[in-house]
Amino acid sequence: MAISTSAVNHQVRLASRPVGLPTEANWQFSEEPVNDPAAGGVLVQVLALSLDPAMRGWMNEGKSYIRPVEIGEVMRAGGIGRVVASRSPAFAAGDLVAGTFGVQEYWAASAEQLPKSGLHKIDPRLGQPTQWLNVLGMPGMTAYFGLLDVGRPSAGETVVVSGAAGAVGQTVGQLAKIKGCRAIGIAGGQAKCEWVVNELGFDACIDYKAAAPAGVERWDAVREGLKQHCASGVDVYFDNVGVPILDTVLARINRKARIVICGAIAQYNATGGMQGPKNYMSLLVNRARMEGMVVFDYAERYSQAVAELAGHLKDGRIKSKEDVVRGGVKAFPSTLLKLFSGENFGKLVLHVAD
Amino acid sequence: MAISTSAVNHQVRLASRPVGLPTEANWQFSEEPVNDPAAGGVLVQVLALSLDPAMRGWMNEGKSYIRPVEIGEVMRAGGIGRVVASRSPAFAAGDLVAGTFGVQEYWAASAEQLPKSGLHKIDPRLGQPTQWLNVLGMPGMTAYFGLLDVGRPSAGETVVVSGAAGAVGQTVGQLAKIKGCRAIGIAGGQAKCEWVVNELGFDACIDYKAAAPAGVERWDAVREGLKQHCASGVDVYFDNVGVPILDTVLARINRKARIVICGAIAQYNATGGMQGPKNYMSLLVNRARMEGMVVFDYAERYSQAVAELAGHLKDGRIKSKEDVVRGGVKAFPSTLLKLFSGENFGKLVLHVAD
Repeated sequence: MAISTSAVNHQVRLASRPVGLPTEANWQFSEEPVNDPAAGGVLVQVLALSLDPAMRGWMNEGKSYIRPVEIGEVMRAGGIGRVVASRSPAFAAGDLVAGTFGVQEYWAASAEQLPKSGLHKIDPRLGQPTQWLNVLGMPGMTAYFGLLDVGRPSAGETVVVSGAAGAVGQTVGQLAKIKGCRAIGIAGGQAKCEWVVNELGFDACIDYKAAAPAGVERWDAVREGLKQHCASGVDVYFDNVGVPILDTVLARINRKARIVICGAIAQYNATGGMQGPKNYMSLLVNRARMEGMVVFDYAERYSQAVAELAGHLKDGRIKSKEDVVRGGVKAFPSTLLKLFSGENFGKLVLHVAD
Repeated sequence: MAISTSAVNHQVRLASRPVGLPTEANWQFSEEPVNDPAAGGVLVQVLALSLDPAMRGWMNEGKSYIRPVEIGEVMRAGGIGRVVASRSPAFAAGDLVAGTFGVQEYWAASAEQLPKSGLHKIDPRLGQPTQWLNVLGMPGMTAYFGLLDVGRPSAGETVVVSGAAGAVGQTVGQLAKIKGCRAIGIAGGQAKCEWVVNELGFDACIDYKAAAPAGVERWDAVREGLKQHCASGVDVYFDNVGVPILDTVLARINRKARIVICGAIAQYNATGGMQGPKNYMSLLVNRARMEGMVVFDYAERYSQAVAELAGHLKDGRIKSKEDVVRGGVKAFPSTLLKLFSGENFGKLVLHVAD
């Protein structure tokens, strides 16, 4: 199948590295013609992109778990798409696929690039396309391996997760319930907290944005919430937000508690430097551990996790919520900011094409 | 054997809780008569006391891994002593023993107190009495289980230990060498660093008190030292000192690194609140873990560790250094401060009686 020669690929590139919150000035819009693939290559039309807190880190210079996005490069983003033209035997036009497409409308790979690109077909019978960016995608994989492999909860234990209504958090709490744990969320806003408890079945959810009683600091209110809902302490804490909530939870962990360090969204835009968890000596007192995880390490086991999570989706034991923003790649800069204001409700997805 | 009725037990009690460094005002001296033990009890003359950074924590109010010392109570301290009178079949006059005697000259236990007191005989053939407060005592046990059970080093890995010339650190580094690792110490002062390398066989030791080159901050110099001596990164960090050195090491850890949180002596007297390790997200980037340990958890395995360490002492693979201060219990308040100024060189021991 040949593409109309008039098709144009709209792209968003990193123009400069942000200090603090990204602004419009950090982005640059570009256009490229869309060409038919060469022998062995594929051309994918991007349908939807995943917007993730980790993107903020990719915009910084310097060594991390993944190389930074270079100035002038198309911003890195995972997404789902449809193969529109293929000269590779591995893919056919019409296939639904997932890959790291970048913030653009079309993605092409040559015969050399394809094998290491991570492009893979997705099965629309297992979940909605947007669920492939959520429960069945990176956030779901992160929740699954972070909770089960690093957090290792046992039935009857108390699992606390921050960013509970977010992409990773929603699956962490539901998996904890499936494993027989008590699941306590921390989220910003009454609507999110109610959804987490009423729809997802968490045992409780602490609203860190709730108006604290007169004379009580906001974080003291979170501490009181933890005291109330985790009367017998915290066994596993899945941390998506970092300090100061991390410190509040550290003060309530049990012996041999496991803290999964998955993110620190509250600090990604800090310009005054990162804050460390001042209660870290609670790890000593409680013989506890704090461990970081990066989902890519588990790539060989994704299919196992997808199968299990798709089963839970099918039988209704796991629900998902995606916050799909329409507007195409041009809306990327403003949509990304929703993550850092806590404005998004559910997995943030940018719709690019139908 | 009866004790002279004129014997007096001199004691040091906690008079008030310190803010920052303990002062003379936090201590109170007292005297009690020494009595023969009742049926089933023992009386021990204290020979030497172990002075440990953890003592500073015991002086604080509030929940920790062990109950705080109460105001008016004899200060908690481990030590070695000699049984001077026994009406228990488990001990005989003349036995060398170790136990938590407190800062006093005599320690007595009734028949009821004895079984749960932790009093146990020590074998003078395995090590000098002061070595029973060092390699064969709590510091050695802490080094052994902290490094081997929590740090889990493999041959060829790089192990870094702070407080390298201290009681725990000296054994950590030597054990690391025995296990085939590269051992890098961090210590304060040239004499300590030279001893650690030349006598104990560490591969290198970074002097955090060394005069930094003009225009270079002290901690930057530590960072440069780590860069130089751990060119291929840090696999295990055994932390006795806390922030800021913890942050410096966090910036150089390898994938799957293990950080053993054993202490944070640099911060025990902080009055402005604890500092958290601001580089803790390095745990995520490197899929690393930071884990606390408390030596008492390994009590059932002490005898195994003592046997192994005594073997190393005997064949010269492990050396030890004790900094024995004479002056009796009255010298306790001033001697304790040597720990926090970094003035002690080797395991700090207070000599109480010959």
